[in-house]
Amino acid sequence: MSVDWGHVFASRVGGMTASEIRELLKLIDRPEIISFAGGIPDPDLFPTSALARAYEKIFQSNGGAGGALQYSITEGYTPLREWISEYMGRNGVNVGLDGVLVTNGSQQVLEFVGKLLIGPGDKIVVTRPTYLGALQAFSPYEPVYLSIPMEEEGPELAALEAALAQKPKFFYLVPDFQNPNGTTISLARREAILDLCTAAGVPVIEDTAYSELRYDGEQLPLISALDCARNGGVLTNVIYCGTFSKTMVPALRIGWVNAAPEVINRLVLMKQAADLHASTINQMVMHDVVSQLFDSHIKVLKSHYKERRDAMLAALEEFAPPGVTWTKPEGGLFVWVEAPDSVNGTALLARAIKESNVAFVPGSAFHADRSGHNTLRLAFSVTKPERIREGVRRLCGLLKEYT
Amino acid sequence: MSVDWGHVFASRVGGMTASEIRELLKLIDRPEIISFAGGIPDPDLFPTSALARAYEKIFQSNGGAGGALQYSITEGYTPLREWISEYMGRNGVNVGLDGVLVTNGSQQVLEFVGKLLIGPGDKIVVTRPTYLGALQAFSPYEPVYLSIPMEEEGPELAALEAALAQKPKFFYLVPDFQNPNGTTISLARREAILDLCTAAGVPVIEDTAYSELRYDGEQLPLISALDCARNGGVLTNVIYCGTFSKTMVPALRIGWVNAAPEVINRLVLMKQAADLHASTINQMVMHDVVSQLFDSHIKVLKSHYKERRDAMLAALEEFAPPGVTWTKPEGGLFVWVEAPDSVNGTALLARAIKESNVAFVPGSAFHADRSGHNTLRLAFSVTKPERIREGVRRLCGLLKEYT
Repeated sequence: MSVDWGHVFASRVGGMTASEIRELLKLIDRPEIISFAGGIPDPDLFPTSALARAYEKIFQSNGGAGGALQYSITEGYTPLREWISEYMGRNGVNVGLDGVLVTNGSQQVLEFVGKLLIGPGDKIVVTRPTYLGALQAFSPYEPVYLSIPMEEEGPELAALEAALAQKPKFFYLVPDFQNPNGTTISLARREAILDLCTAAGVPVIEDTAYSELRYDGEQLPLISALDCARNGGVLTNVIYCGTFSKTMVPALRIGWVNAAPEVINRLVLMKQAADLHASTINQMVMHDVVSQLFDSHIKVLKSHYKERRDAMLAALEEFAPPGVTWTKPEGGLFVWVEAPDSVNGTALLARAIKESNVAFVPGSAFHADRSGHNTLRLAFSVTKPERIREGVRRLCGLLKEYT
Repeated sequence: MSVDWGHVFASRVGGMTASEIRELLKLIDRPEIISFAGGIPDPDLFPTSALARAYEKIFQSNGGAGGALQYSITEGYTPLREWISEYMGRNGVNVGLDGVLVTNGSQQVLEFVGKLLIGPGDKIVVTRPTYLGALQAFSPYEPVYLSIPMEEEGPELAALEAALAQKPKFFYLVPDFQNPNGTTISLARREAILDLCTAAGVPVIEDTAYSELRYDGEQLPLISALDCARNGGVLTNVIYCGTFSKTMVPALRIGWVNAAPEVINRLVLMKQAADLHASTINQMVMHDVVSQLFDSHIKVLKSHYKERRDAMLAALEEFAPPGVTWTKPEGGLFVWVEAPDSVNGTALLARAIKESNVAFVPGSAFHADRSGHNTLRLAFSVTKPERIREGVRRLCGLLKEYT
């Protein structure tokens, strides 16, 4: 006899399925493809020389590099946590060191939120659409999803109220330039969400991966900041998910979570059990780099990404056939396209790669309820403006056949 | 109303408790303390210049550092996986690239094993004592532990057989120089464990954190290698947990898991949901360093650690009062002391820190059933021989009072 693996897997493994889209996207790593698929930052814009110098300094330091290479405390490198605490304070969120845990990107925060809060069959609230990675992080904990439609101003409040009446464990949202559809939640809607969730005793999970990347209009207060303002300056009802992956560099895998100390205490135990701590040397390097150039680097990113967003919106204006609509995001990395109902995004992707050398992510992957078959996510972050125009031209050529 | 966090936590959070020992050990970061507490490698022995040069090379490469700083595939950096596959082959474990996943140290493998296999109330088998970090990784998935006593040759077979009759999900063990007690499982016992587990259809989880650090005697075949030999060269019934933390350096957080492809497939989805991938740059650096000096560096480590182990055993021989016994490990980082029943390890630690400036880890933490109150784990890895002698002298001075 030998092990029958399918038989010994825990039931939660059933919620983890390979994505057909992931298989399709393996085909796009050819130079002739114009890809709007990856929701990733442009490597040409990474602060490479500052990073090189930061690693170098670690090995040249008087005390030796031993500390940077050794096990370290689970909570994270103290100077980095101090920087985060100070940065959050500037954004209206007051947290002491006992309210900060460094993680492997904000993806790990989502994983921990699932582990902390979801029991099998528990209801959780997400927007429709929502971030695919959040669904992947939550699903193994076997929740029942309640999906709230997104309007231009944010989640539909009547639907949220109805969902909260079902006693969900939390409401997960991306307030600014949401992945995938670029929507930003208005200030009034942020206040209303906090009103409703607080009244129901339901935590808000605020994922701010793109919040720093605003190209037009004014920065809106974080829901975490509104929560602090209502609670004597203390972060109370919101778990804030932060990351340096979009603002600095993803490969160091450094993000963080802020929450009330009683939540952070549990997350520290979880982090210790999961992988002890984030890479010591990478935390030290990230601290060095953000201390030097966080604000100036964001300015550089914004000028480039704004130009690309503008190029994508202009190209859609120029080439999109009637019946195709799209969002006009004020920031972030994504434009969201809604095609006529006759379009199936996954089938379109297969054709687009094969016939037109252009790629994107079909929107259905971002729907907990698998709706949105006719939606497409286009990332403009890694493509130069002239290539963006050409890619949109090709994609719209295909779309014309359906309208 | 606001969020009542205690009320919204999932039931699994109840299994995650802060350790009183961890609180005590926060007190030992003073130079006058001789600490045998940390099960950590000696930072003076890290391959620091090779690491410095590896980071430097990444930033000087012709193609630029972009790839090292960008998101990368979940499975891990391909050349590192190739190195691991080749290394495992030399150790009798044949796995292709589809049998290798790079993780954040082997701690993350243990976390994933828990998530993959344990449903609430499932039985799992561990040794008594066993690695504390494994208990921390498994407990949030709410298992029922079946603890098998350890004899000199390894787990007691009659107890294992009785445990397997209860249809557990897996048997977790450390074959070589086990943390905490330094025991090595004999070849005959490895074969017998594999016989019994395979007959019962129960997977073995083999954690080899210390296996390369053997100071006397001959290396024994891995249980993974025995499994391969029985199954036409194919790893079938064992999940192998590997790490570079003890052989190279911990702070890069690079370990790996080998298993049958159908298991690795699931673990890749789990890794993607948990934190996308291990740090790209750190994987590239680790690949560079292990390719250059893995074997020669292990030789250096062994010569130093052997000297320290010998110093600790000699000091115990010299100073230990009657009624105190200890293991004579052939490798690894730990000696395990059994004191008279009147000794409570945790109380002794508090006294040892306060009165004698010496620290260790009380053994009860390594018992799933909280037994072993009179046991102590002494790590010899970060202390020079003359300090080891002095520390053991002080500790034995205290122990004398109980005998």
